Amino acid sequence: MDLITRETLFNQIRFWILDAGSIIRKKINYPLKVGIKSNPQDLVTEMDREVEFFFAEKIKEYYPEHYLLSEEGFGDNLSTSAGTIWVLDPIDGTMNFVHQKQNFAISLGIYHQGIGEIGFIYDVMNNNLYSALRGHGAYKNQKRLPKLDPNKKLDEAIISINHRWLTKNRLIDEKITQQLVKNVRGTRTYGAAAIEFGYVAEGAIDAYITMNLEPWDIAAGRIIVDEVGGCTTNVVGEQVDMLDRSSILTCNPSLQETLINEYLEKAKK
Amino acid sequence: MDLITRETLFNQIRFWILDAGSIIRKKINYPLKVGIKSNPQDLVTEMDREVEFFFAEKIKEYYPEHYLLSEEGFGDNLSTSAGTIWVLDPIDGTMNFVHQKQNFAISLGIYHQGIGEIGFIYDVMNNNLYSALRGHGAYKNQKRLPKLDPNKKLDEAIISINHRWLTKNRLIDEKITQQLVKNVRGTRTYGAAAIEFGYVAEGAIDAYITMNLEPWDIAAGRIIVDEVGGCTTNVVGEQVDMLDRSSILTCNPSLQETLINEYLEKAKK
Repeated sequence: MDLITRETLFNQIRFWILDAGSIIRKKINYPLKVGIKSNPQDLVTEMDREVEFFFAEKIKEYYPEHYLLSEEGFGDNLSTSAGTIWVLDPIDGTMNFVHQKQNFAISLGIYHQGIGEIGFIYDVMNNNLYSALRGHGAYKNQKRLPKLDPNKKLDEAIISINHRWLTKNRLIDEKITQQLVKNVRGTRTYGAAAIEFGYVAEGAIDAYITMNLEPWDIAAGRIIVDEVGGCTTNVVGEQVDMLDRSSILTCNPSLQETLINEYLEKAKK
Repeated sequence: MDLITRETLFNQIRFWILDAGSIIRKKINYPLKVGIKSNPQDLVTEMDREVEFFFAEKIKEYYPEHYLLSEEGFGDNLSTSAGTIWVLDPIDGTMNFVHQKQNFAISLGIYHQGIGEIGFIYDVMNNNLYSALRGHGAYKNQKRLPKLDPNKKLDEAIISINHRWLTKNRLIDEKITQQLVKNVRGTRTYGAAAIEFGYVAEGAIDAYITMNLEPWDIAAGRIIVDEVGGCTTNVVGEQVDMLDRSSILTCNPSLQETLINEYLEKAKK
């Protein structure tokens, strides 16, 4: 994908993302129809589907040769990463959306032949747009984000991790995650993967660890984090396939080795 | 304290809080001098002291008969709750302030003869002001907050708790807090007690549990939570003395009994 095509696409999508956010803000106080999908944690709203449909229609009209990988059913069934793929989470942080009407994001990554070219995370209610164009840096709104501090130490770090990974579970040894929590300066849980990626990119947190994300939870975030020199892999340091579910460690590069070698490799079941 | 005095004070303080927030926003990108007080978690900044000094001067000039209870040293040594006391946390969420430059709050509660009359929590960077005048409801900015849902169930609840209370510690049995985490819909950690009180008041979270807060972390929040029908006690359901450190459970009233009887009373060491 050449630079002119990428820049045109970036500017076009930026406009659509802001537009979709504006629609959400207008409708946020409508009565919600909440369905139960696989379990009570997994709330599906009409708004998810509406935002996904918004982007599916844009692709159909303006970029009919592109594919859509998404959660709610308007996307394509993809078995390879060939071509140009929009990887969309229409509302990342659905529980926050339903319970809080804030602290959720639209997350959209554009991949071309498997390479992340463009990433957008839009924290709709706080009106914060994180964006990146591969090789051209990451931004929060109009402000270019600096490279992450290369000398961050674990005992000065704030990490984000869901509390459930500190309780008995089938994916990670809770004794080790509990020890990790004791060894860092602070911990946070925001309940929206895309926002936690945005926070890693701006250095508001230094690492985000989670055991089970879908491609659309990760797609935009990893592109944005890459542009500030951050690292995104699974929790044992392997590259993440853009079409698969995965555990995720996204972090300041100076913490990656310690987190993987001293904690996560030992903890992963 | 009569209503006219209370309303005058409310409007005057509201103006000062917004003013102090505006000073913070102007200075937020100055280089910070961070000192280490008792441990690395306990960061003290010049801004804390500056905001406390701002209010100490206002009291001296306009309300010389009032007292100030606060963290950084401009306050009074108080042994009783007699008179009118301003209970101030100039920057609640200091770690967020230092690391994130967001997600911190000015917290100010006004007590008269031990009764909480006025509460303000100002999430400075998101420009959200929670306020309450006893008996006249709670507000987020200009919007009156509704009473909390009286039918909330624990398995539909989002609770906020620091991860450290899920690890071995001297105050609470981590086995029980881990079980609690498994039994709720979701968990969060925001790292600023005042903001977590604000979130309880607006129903964005349904409970906030913590083992060790200072009076200025609690003072404003409990007044605001009271006004939407929420409950604030220590974790075994006892009333909290406004001059002492305490554990805290602040929550939707329909969760209080279950949280205390089935979890926290058994867990408290």
